[in-house]
Amino acid sequence: MTYCVGLLLDAGIVLLSDTRTNAGLDNISSYRKMFTFEEPGERVIGIMTAGSLSVTQTVIARLTDAIEDPDADPTRSIMKVPTMLGVAEIVGNMLGEVRREVATKLDRMSQTASASMILTGQRKGGPMRMFLIYPEGNFIEATRDTPYLQIGEHKYGKPILDRVVTSETSLADAKKAVLLSMDSTLRSNLSVGMPLDLAVMREGEFRISEQRRIEDNDPAFARMSEDWSNALRTSFSQIEALD
Amino acid sequence: MTYCVGLLLDAGIVLLSDTRTNAGLDNISSYRKMFTFEEPGERVIGIMTAGSLSVTQTVIARLTDAIEDPDADPTRSIMKVPTMLGVAEIVGNMLGEVRREVATKLDRMSQTASASMILTGQRKGGPMRMFLIYPEGNFIEATRDTPYLQIGEHKYGKPILDRVVTSETSLADAKKAVLLSMDSTLRSNLSVGMPLDLAVMREGEFRISEQRRIEDNDPAFARMSEDWSNALRTSFSQIEALD
Repeated sequence: MTYCVGLLLDAGIVLLSDTRTNAGLDNISSYRKMFTFEEPGERVIGIMTAGSLSVTQTVIARLTDAIEDPDADPTRSIMKVPTMLGVAEIVGNMLGEVRREVATKLDRMSQTASASMILTGQRKGGPMRMFLIYPEGNFIEATRDTPYLQIGEHKYGKPILDRVVTSETSLADAKKAVLLSMDSTLRSNLSVGMPLDLAVMREGEFRISEQRRIEDNDPAFARMSEDWSNALRTSFSQIEALD
Repeated sequence: MTYCVGLLLDAGIVLLSDTRTNAGLDNISSYRKMFTFEEPGERVIGIMTAGSLSVTQTVIARLTDAIEDPDADPTRSIMKVPTMLGVAEIVGNMLGEVRREVATKLDRMSQTASASMILTGQRKGGPMRMFLIYPEGNFIEATRDTPYLQIGEHKYGKPILDRVVTSETSLADAKKAVLLSMDSTLRSNLSVGMPLDLAVMREGEFRISEQRRIEDNDPAFARMSEDWSNALRTSFSQIEALD
């Protein structure tokens, strides 16, 4: 499985993804699930993926091919299409197409393959936008009412987001929130695993403002996780019982 | 949907269930999902249910019929069978049987009906035991390594249990833990709803030591929920950021 979360805030975009993939319980690997594309100062795009690796890798490979093809027109290249909505349409159509191709192949074995994506970014002159793209290619968009989107194992990490994240949340707090949301998921579900990929795109910079991989032994993340555990246990012990 | 959680601790058993049921999103009702049976000083049994109401109500009704039937032998009455393992076998077989009956009826409409249960209790002379019974009637048991079982929407409320519950947890803390686990679930998932049913069976009492319904407007639960929210937000603000 997977856990990816994206926050669309007034100050910018924050993305966090894990890297664990598995084909059955006995075949576990680590694959990057966050992909970024930028022409600094002009546009920045981030994509996070969940689901069948055979689907998501093919989608990313074809999108990359189209970007690198000098003859690709704006209906194929996500770096040429004029708006983020156009980017979402290209990615959505590609996801739906690849999913159907793979499903046709798997149909003979009564298996299915599915995938979903979070797509986000900003183009010069336009607003930041964030979309959740479903397996068939249709999508929904994050708004001020609901400024975050999740794919994969989203339930464990949702309560903390529901409590602390609004559109006005600062980027520093947003990074804390997604990391603690991931921390709860990592603790409760073995199918989500380190290392993590974190990226920030500040509003109006049209580039990856910050990107880092957080390895399994990262001391700052371990310290944050430990502090949060201790804070939860202390808070728990201080809550007055029901009676 | 549903959220039910049971803790099997050295000091006793703590059970908590919600009451929301729905047939589609536009048909929402409130039904008790916790059922208790006792012969004080001799045996106490608690059952919590998740899944199709047509299955779970029939199972509980047939179990109750067998208890009330003076001619029922120990292979049918959960109040006569000598051990908690025997109780689990009666309940499991009944669940599997009713599920198959209902499934046969629904098959014509290409629909399915499924249900699962948490069964727990203690008989004089025996240990407290807690089982999770699957739709087909097979079951697993809570142990000291994993002293809690959940059915229904279990993911939102799992992180807090993973952090604070061990076999040594006191009953007062256990009640807090299940209520805060439920609180996270209520906030993040509309298909789980108030009122709640809480029950405690202290080790060696062989009776329902404590049972209460927590209504939507319960001031103590509202205060606990509010305190927990505030504590989480304060803890969050005090955690040092990653950089």
